[in-house]
Amino acid sequence: MSYLELETAIISMHCEDEKGIISAVTDFILTNNGNIVELDQHVDVDSNRFYMRIEWEIDGFGIERNKIGEYFETLVVKKYKDVHWNVNFNHQKPKMALFVSHYGHCLYDILGRVDTGEWNVDIACIISNHQEFEPLVSKFGIPFYYFEMKGNDKEAIEAEQIKLLLEHQVDLIVLARYMQILSPNFVDHFTNRIINIHHSSLPAFPGANPYKNAFMRGVKFMGATAHYVTSDLDEGPIIAQDVIPISHRHTLDDLKRRGRDIEKIVLANAVYAHLSRRVLTFGNKTVVFD
Amino acid sequence: MSYLELETAIISMHCEDEKGIISAVTDFILTNNGNIVELDQHVDVDSNRFYMRIEWEIDGFGIERNKIGEYFETLVVKKYKDVHWNVNFNHQKPKMALFVSHYGHCLYDILGRVDTGEWNVDIACIISNHQEFEPLVSKFGIPFYYFEMKGNDKEAIEAEQIKLLLEHQVDLIVLARYMQILSPNFVDHFTNRIINIHHSSLPAFPGANPYKNAFMRGVKFMGATAHYVTSDLDEGPIIAQDVIPISHRHTLDDLKRRGRDIEKIVLANAVYAHLSRRVLTFGNKTVVFD
Amino acid sequence: MSYLELETAIISMHCEDEKGIISAVTDFILTNNGNIVELDQHVDVDSNRFYMRIEWEIDGFGIERNKIGEYFETLVVKKYKDVHWNVNFNHQKPKMALFVSHYGHCLYDILGRVDTGEWNVDIACIISNHQEFEPLVSKFGIPFYYFEMKGNDKEAIEAEQIKLLLEHQVDLIVLARYMQILSPNFVDHFTNRIINIHHSSLPAFPGANPYKNAFMRGVKFMGATAHYVTSDLDEGPIIAQDVIPISHRHTLDDLKRRGRDIEKIVLANAVYAHLSRRVLTFGNKTVVFD
Amino acid sequence: MSYLELETAIISMHCEDEKGIISAVTDFILTNNGNIVELDQHVDVDSNRFYMRIEWEIDGFGIERNKIGEYFETLVVKKYKDVHWNVNFNHQKPKMALFVSHYGHCLYDILGRVDTGEWNVDIACIISNHQEFEPLVSKFGIPFYYFEMKGNDKEAIEAEQIKLLLEHQVDLIVLARYMQILSPNFVDHFTNRIINIHHSSLPAFPGANPYKNAFMRGVKFMGATAHYVTSDLDEGPIIAQDVIPISHRHTLDDLKRRGRDIEKIVLANAVYAHLSRRVLTFGNKTVVFD
Repeated sequence: MSYLELETAIISMHCEDEKGIISAVTDFILTNNGNIVELDQHVDVDSNRFYMRIEWEIDGFGIERNKIGEYFETLVVKKYKDVHWNVNFNHQKPKMALFVSHYGHCLYDILGRVDTGEWNVDIACIISNHQEFEPLVSKFGIPFYYFEMKGNDKEAIEAEQIKLLLEHQVDLIVLARYMQILSPNFVDHFTNRIINIHHSSLPAFPGANPYKNAFMRGVKFMGATAHYVTSDLDEGPIIAQDVIPISHRHTLDDLKRRGRDIEKIVLANAVYAHLSRRVLTFGNKTVVFD
Repeated sequence: MSYLELETAIISMHCEDEKGIISAVTDFILTNNGNIVELDQHVDVDSNRFYMRIEWEIDGFGIERNKIGEYFETLVVKKYKDVHWNVNFNHQKPKMALFVSHYGHCLYDILGRVDTGEWNVDIACIISNHQEFEPLVSKFGIPFYYFEMKGNDKEAIEAEQIKLLLEHQVDLIVLARYMQILSPNFVDHFTNRIINIHHSSLPAFPGANPYKNAFMRGVKFMGATAHYVTSDLDEGPIIAQDVIPISHRHTLDDLKRRGRDIEKIVLANAVYAHLSRRVLTFGNKTVVFD
Repeated sequence: MSYLELETAIISMHCEDEKGIISAVTDFILTNNGNIVELDQHVDVDSNRFYMRIEWEIDGFGIERNKIGEYFETLVVKKYKDVHWNVNFNHQKPKMALFVSHYGHCLYDILGRVDTGEWNVDIACIISNHQEFEPLVSKFGIPFYYFEMKGNDKEAIEAEQIKLLLEHQVDLIVLARYMQILSPNFVDHFTNRIINIHHSSLPAFPGANPYKNAFMRGVKFMGATAHYVTSDLDEGPIIAQDVIPISHRHTLDDLKRRGRDIEKIVLANAVYAHLSRRVLTFGNKTVVFD
Repeated sequence: MSYLELETAIISMHCEDEKGIISAVTDFILTNNGNIVELDQHVDVDSNRFYMRIEWEIDGFGIERNKIGEYFETLVVKKYKDVHWNVNFNHQKPKMALFVSHYGHCLYDILGRVDTGEWNVDIACIISNHQEFEPLVSKFGIPFYYFEMKGNDKEAIEAEQIKLLLEHQVDLIVLARYMQILSPNFVDHFTNRIINIHHSSLPAFPGANPYKNAFMRGVKFMGATAHYVTSDLDEGPIIAQDVIPISHRHTLDDLKRRGRDIEKIVLANAVYAHLSRRVLTFGNKTVVFD
């Protein structure tokens, strides 16, 4: 993929807004001979918060790769308030776990994106409360873990899953139509690293059966929402949404059929944005530099 | 306007679904030498309900205009169950009242549509709880009635408004960003004849301050909803909706500015559909033949 | 899938418009005890053409399945002018061939839809002018035929491909980003049975490099178009289109990346509509009953 | 309007991309005690071009308003290559001329936006080749100039129009469905200051009768395009576009009716972006900071 032709470093950060931050950050890169290839910044006036993502060519940069963080902290971060930041490299390949249940459309879609090289990520493992996708997943040589939920101790299962995810050194968990609610304890282990797809345009139709509820209410648009999972169900920071028009001609089955396509595209857009370090989260809102 | 070149009759109806209704209705028109110019029908399988709108050239039709209803009732309606129906003629000019408050974008938009002949309707009067649009309205020679709400008896004011609307023989009331809540008594006088524009994509963000709430929640789409007013606030049958993408780059002021355009277009789509007898309502849902 | 719970027959037809066609068709079904589950009709006033799709439960229908066509022709078709029609059954499983080249996103998407049972179709075979997707296709147990084009006689290759498609009794050919132009001779063998996806919103940017041309022209929307292939390149009847907004922030690579998603969804929408007998074609236009 | 609560200065610029431009510009403002309220920048990698729009509070800024340009040129512009730039102030009220013919929907829309204070602009005059909108325009107290085109010397008329526009010190000309082609000479007087609305999604359906051509081609989307006028008809830099889905159910009249709404909204979006100094043009493309 062309985005990997150049080897780059990426700093994502947000902090209290003050005069001169952009200059400080760009100076840090320019004085060390970095060539900036992309710079996005945003100020949220309401919360007085500054957001920035900057990407530059690593080749010829004056600070060694594994020292960039340390230098950036000393020379920039310390001068500003409440800075959240990280440094990444576009050639790093993050590790992703997928959680699935009965519906396969998001799973197939993600397998295709990874297999064709569209996404620079490894699928470390796939976890399910059902066995039906094991044959498919095995075709792609990916570890598949089945956990029977019914009649079992959810807390114990989650403990096992967390252990597994840590062993696999998973950076990101994608709930690809996973029909179990994760406990606050599970969620706390992976803050802003669990992406869920909900099959409505939140905050409309949270919870169970959004398609049926949309159908009953007679809305003229339906949608899907990808968001980071928090302990408040369907209330986490929204990363991506999309909608399509519907009419009286569409049955509930049509809604489900057409919904699958928005779900998989919206989820993919959110995961891609996360993987390319374009999502910055503060409070319950995201800044997505697309 | 080309839609008025032909003089037509329009029957809109819905009833319990049974075999043969389409045949019965089309036969009624064909055997009386009517030339059908448009036929839309829909069956809602869930509620076993049949919906139809049929429009035919009145010229040469074998039944006199003022007898069509009587004959249709005798020959068709009586054979089916729970039939809701009406007959209209495209050359009839309905009378519309507008209710406005402080925001003028929907008002200007509607004045333009009527003035250019886009809509075949008369604006009977404009009612407001503020005086600011009186000079504008007077330019267009339309009666303007001002009702001061503050400190006054709402029930008495509504009684006066109802009297006024009946005197003006108003067919349709359009709440063009009217910021007062109508009482159930008022609403009952005009069932399915009051259209409101709400500045969110319902059921998301009902009630007050939808733009602010959308901004705070960090949604990636915002919208507007036109619906018939019922005594449940923001819960009436939805006629039209539209949405636009938003991002972190949009301030609350941007949302308001861009929202005005969706509001006025969505409201206009709903009013146009109503005026051309394309909206059929059953329970809390609409069938809109577009 | 729920759409297969009922066993149904489907008649799709179009003809010169005349009074009474709907009655004639619905009477044919009703008098033989058929229960209509879906009826769509459309009159194109400009060309005086009538279009209809009607679907009814086969269970209890008074005419045997393999006689329906004969009876329909005798009792209905013969009375009208220039009737194009066919009868199908929702339980029939059509056979589809896919043609692919270097890009895999449409291929993966279609494999997923067939594998999850979303589409009621068999993939008879996959034909390519490259070998790279052979390993993937073999995972799904589908015959894969490779034809090296470079330096070879195109006419002879096409003859071989046609033979293969006939042997496999293929009903539908899907060009899933196939980068070769089919000869008029090939196309004539499969009129209105070859669906292509073109990566622009036709008629904008036909031919080669639509993304680059869209990028150079600075358009603010880009799209994809699925159409039946005719001997006029990119000029066949359009079945489905979709578009997305773009801005100066999007590079040519972004256009290609985001374009893949619209391509695969638009192609899938067109194929689904074709498979469920919802596309009626006359001249260079389609009626798609969705 | 809230955007006018603060008094601000705005610099829009583009130039050859080089290291350090953002720092140079932000330093210019920060060292003179300016508080930046909005900063947008973009690098077009293909053309190696840097684009920036920066807006800051004028209150307390260390350089006098009428000296800002001179200082900016000396301290910043001179150090970079091929810089196009300008300084504006949000409290300046630009002067706009409207050209109209027979269709009034864009005219009514713009009158409403100016009258309600949505746009911070004066309508200096309205020019038409027809007399029908004179009564409307006179209601709003705006000068209306009628030029009969038929049988008259176009060159002489344009000369008179140019004179008029210069007398009115017009900053921007909006062709609100003006059905005459402007000569290259006229266009050259107002480079990137004439905005036209074309009723198709360019480059699809340029020239005459785009709705009819879209209808004949059977496209599934239609749109509108606002662009700066150049001497190449319908080929100027695109500022804004929008599209809506259409189907076989829509007649040519439906296309025209629904098209009017996209036309007026797209034109308004383009004019608003221009008025708020958010459109930067280089070659045949625009950067629109929204």
